[in-house]
Amino acid sequence: MRKRIIGVMGPGSGATSVDTKNAYTIGESIARNGWILLSGGRNSGVMDAVNKGAKHSDGLTVGIMPTSDTTTISEAVDIPIITDMKSARNNINVLTSDVIVACGIGAGTASEISLALKADKKVILLNDDEESKVFFKRIGKGNVHIAKNPKDVIDLIKEIIG
Amino acid sequence: MRKRIIGVMGPGSGATSVDTKNAYTIGESIARNGWILLSGGRNSGVMDAVNKGAKHSDGLTVGIMPTSDTTTISEAVDIPIITDMKSARNNINVLTSDVIVACGIGAGTASEISLALKADKKVILLNDDEESKVFFKRIGKGNVHIAKNPKDVIDLIKEIIG
Amino acid sequence: MRKRIIGVMGPGSGATSVDTKNAYTIGESIARNGWILLSGGRNSGVMDAVNKGAKHSDGLTVGIMPTSDTTTISEAVDIPIITDMKSARNNINVLTSDVIVACGIGAGTASEISLALKADKKVILLNDDEESKVFFKRIGKGNVHIAKNPKDVIDLIKEIIG
Amino acid sequence: MRKRIIGVMGPGSGATSVDTKNAYTIGESIARNGWILLSGGRNSGVMDAVNKGAKHSDGLTVGIMPTSDTTTISEAVDIPIITDMKSARNNINVLTSDVIVACGIGAGTASEISLALKADKKVILLNDDEESKVFFKRIGKGNVHIAKNPKDVIDLIKEIIG
Repeated sequence: MRKRIIGVMGPGSGATSVDTKNAYTIGESIARNGWILLSGGRNSGVMDAVNKGAKHSDGLTVGIMPTSDTTTISEAVDIPIITDMKSARNNINVLTSDVIVACGIGAGTASEISLALKADKKVILLNDDEESKVFFKRIGKGNVHIAKNPKDVIDLIKEIIG
Repeated sequence: MRKRIIGVMGPGSGATSVDTKNAYTIGESIARNGWILLSGGRNSGVMDAVNKGAKHSDGLTVGIMPTSDTTTISEAVDIPIITDMKSARNNINVLTSDVIVACGIGAGTASEISLALKADKKVILLNDDEESKVFFKRIGKGNVHIAKNPKDVIDLIKEIIG
Repeated sequence: MRKRIIGVMGPGSGATSVDTKNAYTIGESIARNGWILLSGGRNSGVMDAVNKGAKHSDGLTVGIMPTSDTTTISEAVDIPIITDMKSARNNINVLTSDVIVACGIGAGTASEISLALKADKKVILLNDDEESKVFFKRIGKGNVHIAKNPKDVIDLIKEIIG
Repeated sequence: MRKRIIGVMGPGSGATSVDTKNAYTIGESIARNGWILLSGGRNSGVMDAVNKGAKHSDGLTVGIMPTSDTTTISEAVDIPIITDMKSARNNINVLTSDVIVACGIGAGTASEISLALKADKKVILLNDDEESKVFFKRIGKGNVHIAKNPKDVIDLIKEIIG
């Protein structure tokens, strides 16, 4: 049976230090559970941190790259998929993932949460933006789960993928 | 000089009767101002209504279609652009538009607002979802404008495109 | 009834002077027949020439742009669709067109001919590359037509769209 | 250092028995050399055979899927990337690969060869269509290599990636 793919989305340069710390921990746990990590793949913010966490635990990491500029790829990405279609690649991120984790928030991350919900995918939110949680819960029709910390995220993933 | 392209986004089957009524009125005004209307192009909800409004005022209408199924194209779309890339086409919608109007709200529309803000585009919101307005204003860095009614929308467009 | 969309594909900087002369003439005829012109939209080679021909005859021109760099848009494009997905946009070019004309040849044009045939679309070839004609005829299963000059191209379009 | 990604493209239902036999052998060798295999991912023709060959030698396989229909994924694909953008995904196939091998020929494969050449990528052709070889050599500006058999393909890959 194919390994599960967990997509972790989050801000690049706009990530807070809490976001990147959480992302690193989530990456470690994803790898330890034998899941494949998928992300936006850039060497910045949540993307870089989650990949580094996963590699620290010997995970396998896939990055869906927005451009063909190889200098922007996180060194912790094993398999960079070069789309060269900028934010249109966000839809590939969510369609490819069995579960989507949004770690932190920003415009790009909000687009991934929305595209995931549009595609009827399960989304786990880990951030301290209260309005976004109320809003996405309302449009998410039961597909939005709220996590309080990285451990919560992993427990929710296990619950979702059974 | 090229005509301005105004993108109007909004729910399909999830649109309320207020959304479609507003969309029709906005479509009429866009056409009367000599702007080109761009939308998601389907024969449903806000997309269908805004195109019908624009054609009623003899406007020019472009639809960025998610699939190659021609039976889903609004009869009021003059130029259907067939992307056959489902929601990945949402990024084309916002990049092509000089201003983006979100009439109503839902997961697809939220993805378009988010992608527009990611691309540093101006977005006008017309809906009664308070949390979404607070949330998008916060992540939108001055690019989010709130309209109370269709007339407001048109006034804001004029202000933005100068 | 919706106007027909004729896609004219061809090299940018690699176009020969015969290619651009043919493209200009084809653009003029497309406009005179009341069809909409679709192209790759850049201000270079066949793309620029065919749009200029069409505008000279007061046609309507749509350009499917590979990047968001507005300085690369042909001044003769009325409606630039900004995909920002580089050559992935070539598939949109062919899916949107009722008939595809390949004026000249190069790697990009060959991809458009191939994608058109993959999508079971009719393609008209106007170039002096004999092997390409033999090759595309073989893989095209009756969908490839050979034109000797711009007049031939227009006659074939009329035959195809009935 | 990141593992090399070798893209193997070829017909689905249109593949000949020679094509699929060659694809299987190429897949085995790619895996034995420690390279990652990338393909169009479907359970048909060259795509299915090359993945099965690679898995037989315990390789890692990535499939860039045209649709979200999971029943069309080759059972030998480890990581299915769901683009849901039909043939527009062909550009992702070639941009992601360090070298592209075209095993057999058809409209889809011709589009991948062309897109690869457009992106200035190295392409290895293994088929018995003489006109296609002459044609792609001409437009390929030194990037097209001709192989006579699977062993040749692997030797050429080694030469190219140094």
